[in-house]
Amino acid sequence: MASATADGLRADPSRMEERIRKLGTYGAEPEGGVSRVAFSDADVAGRSYVTGLMKDAGLTVRVDAAGNIIGRRDGSEPHLPVILFGSHIDSVPRGGNYDGDVGVVGAIECVQLLRDAGVVTRHPLEVVVFSDEEGGLIGSRAMAGELTPEALDVKSHSGKTVREGIRALGGDPDRIVEARRRPEELKAFLELHIEQGAVLEDSGLDIGVVEGIVGINWWDVTIEGFANHAGTTPMDRRKDALLAAAHLVIAVNRAVTGVPGRQVGTVGRISATPGAPNVIPGRVVLSLELRDLSAEKIQSLFASIQREAKAIEATTGTRISFAAIDATAVPAPTDERVRRLIAESATELGLKDQLMPSGAGHDAQDLARLTPTGMIFVPSAGGISHSPKEYTSPTDMANGANVLLRTILKIDAGALD
Amino acid sequence: MASATADGLRADPSRMEERIRKLGTYGAEPEGGVSRVAFSDADVAGRSYVTGLMKDAGLTVRVDAAGNIIGRRDGSEPHLPVILFGSHIDSVPRGGNYDGDVGVVGAIECVQLLRDAGVVTRHPLEVVVFSDEEGGLIGSRAMAGELTPEALDVKSHSGKTVREGIRALGGDPDRIVEARRRPEELKAFLELHIEQGAVLEDSGLDIGVVEGIVGINWWDVTIEGFANHAGTTPMDRRKDALLAAAHLVIAVNRAVTGVPGRQVGTVGRISATPGAPNVIPGRVVLSLELRDLSAEKIQSLFASIQREAKAIEATTGTRISFAAIDATAVPAPTDERVRRLIAESATELGLKDQLMPSGAGHDAQDLARLTPTGMIFVPSAGGISHSPKEYTSPTDMANGANVLLRTILKIDAGALD
Repeated sequence: MASATADGLRADPSRMEERIRKLGTYGAEPEGGVSRVAFSDADVAGRSYVTGLMKDAGLTVRVDAAGNIIGRRDGSEPHLPVILFGSHIDSVPRGGNYDGDVGVVGAIECVQLLRDAGVVTRHPLEVVVFSDEEGGLIGSRAMAGELTPEALDVKSHSGKTVREGIRALGGDPDRIVEARRRPEELKAFLELHIEQGAVLEDSGLDIGVVEGIVGINWWDVTIEGFANHAGTTPMDRRKDALLAAAHLVIAVNRAVTGVPGRQVGTVGRISATPGAPNVIPGRVVLSLELRDLSAEKIQSLFASIQREAKAIEATTGTRISFAAIDATAVPAPTDERVRRLIAESATELGLKDQLMPSGAGHDAQDLARLTPTGMIFVPSAGGISHSPKEYTSPTDMANGANVLLRTILKIDAGALD
Repeated sequence: MASATADGLRADPSRMEERIRKLGTYGAEPEGGVSRVAFSDADVAGRSYVTGLMKDAGLTVRVDAAGNIIGRRDGSEPHLPVILFGSHIDSVPRGGNYDGDVGVVGAIECVQLLRDAGVVTRHPLEVVVFSDEEGGLIGSRAMAGELTPEALDVKSHSGKTVREGIRALGGDPDRIVEARRRPEELKAFLELHIEQGAVLEDSGLDIGVVEGIVGINWWDVTIEGFANHAGTTPMDRRKDALLAAAHLVIAVNRAVTGVPGRQVGTVGRISATPGAPNVIPGRVVLSLELRDLSAEKIQSLFASIQREAKAIEATTGTRISFAAIDATAVPAPTDERVRRLIAESATELGLKDQLMPSGAGHDAQDLARLTPTGMIFVPSAGGISHSPKEYTSPTDMANGANVLLRTILKIDAGALD
């Protein structure tokens, strides 16, 4: 039996690319990309394909109560906790072939390399394909014991409720609590994923070491002015809600860019009523989203936006109110030691890496509350994601799998002990 | 026979108010105000009521080919051209009881006073109730010979096409050219109207002497940025179309308020796509409207807005394009001598007056291209119009009718000769 090192093991870029291509045929759209929304027939078929790959790699596969596919490879020391790694294969409508898929194909690549080399780890390894990531991190929330009964009643993109969907995947929503993993069962969780941004590509880097998944706060902002005739109301007698909104949009940008850091703030939605070219808008409703790794920073940005709003109210004769929306995600930092192992692995492989936040949500944020967690990003061409134009090169995918494998083996060797 | 002077003649505020009230029963809405849209049954019934008043005032009433009601009172010198005055009685949906109605009731008040006093003018007098003012100045455009065949095919608020509607009023759309008046037939046109703004009320004035009806230019403005993930796209890598739009909205306001004058500029409509809180807007479309008495000033404001747009493009990485919309009205100045007669009449009556533009469109703008034209504004409470809350006091209505009558008689006496 070989010892559990990754010295000679290298992911096969062609094999990974071929599997990505094949997986992309399940739910393929005529114009490119896939619509493999969770619980759809395409999702079920894609999971069946992936299950086959897992079995070929020597894994013992089961589906848990939440519909997560779990493929297990025993270690030499059965009493040790599990090193868990994986991602998801469900997509957004008209999405791409890399979001989630790279992490699943990469995880399978790791165990296949170990099997082919006859390497047995000390810890049990489990590859996980989480259910319904895009619809709200359903599988990982169930694994963290945080899926509410209400979430099961939500209608998913497939047309099915989450409850019906989980059943269609072979799970059992009535026994959803059984999907929960206890912290003591797990040694660590690792997720390989495409960046979905352009930071790595623009900086010529190979690997992103994720510092954490950002927290997200949403508000609905309402600006009340006074609707009036655009012809008969002089400029100095107006209470123009859209003019106030314009100042607020700029204030959000100024607040977010005015302090150091990688926080982002976005106004993505706006409506003005009555909405006629010849009527001064009396009311504007817009969305405000702030994201950062620090919940305190989000609150401090929000406070400065509120201060600017007060000043805008005074100069425009309007009233601005903020309603917090219950779509908040708290920041989920990754484990500092796991970050270091990922960075070391990249360096050993001659790859250039950088610490960076994940601006998007991931299953890893749920697992981070359960066990030491790390995330490995590989470049997204043009920073494009959730689009048929998503692309990550075979070399970048293989780089990611190689970093993942090294990190697994470092943990297996006791780097977190 | 009395001489044609107005010395002892004064409009009856109670009679005018009672007629406004009665006219408001045609198309009355349960929650107040009226929906007496052109060509509706309520419009036909209201016109019948007004026709009765005109006949009671001694007018000979006919309906022209465009559906305009014309009530004639002969003068002592039959070869002289007509002094024409009036307004409209059709309303916007859920409009008020004063827009248009005050001018019609006021015009009838004038001829009734003359009849009761036995005063005969030298010139023939004609009271006009224009058809479908709110739907695009249909009756007055036909009278100016500027109604296009296409305009007859437009579907009106009543559900009827303009062509069908004119027929329902007793007009003949096939002979619409016969509604046209030649400049030599007319001595002058006068329109009494509510201000629809708050300038008179705020300044404690009784009468607005309208300098002209402003020109209106509309543009659709498209801002192209790049839609991207709000979580994974750093602030300095965004091409946020809504941020650019916000700068443009402020630039419009700055351009319009940055030079002396009473020009107005409005962004009343905005849409951002894709329009999700977690996606950076890739495209914004908004409306731009500029109004002024001077077409040159509108063009110069537009040029400065375009210059600001160039700078915004550069700083936001977006492209901004302006598409002129064919809803343009050219400025229609009133006749300077008629303005002076209106102001003199107000002064003689002890009323406080002021020169002012009309920011809204009126039938007078079409007549101004045909004959010396004047407009008399009376205060709108709170500046409110196109609303059930429209209100003008009986005193203000009577003031307007008195100024109208004096101006008619000054013109009749040769003030424009």
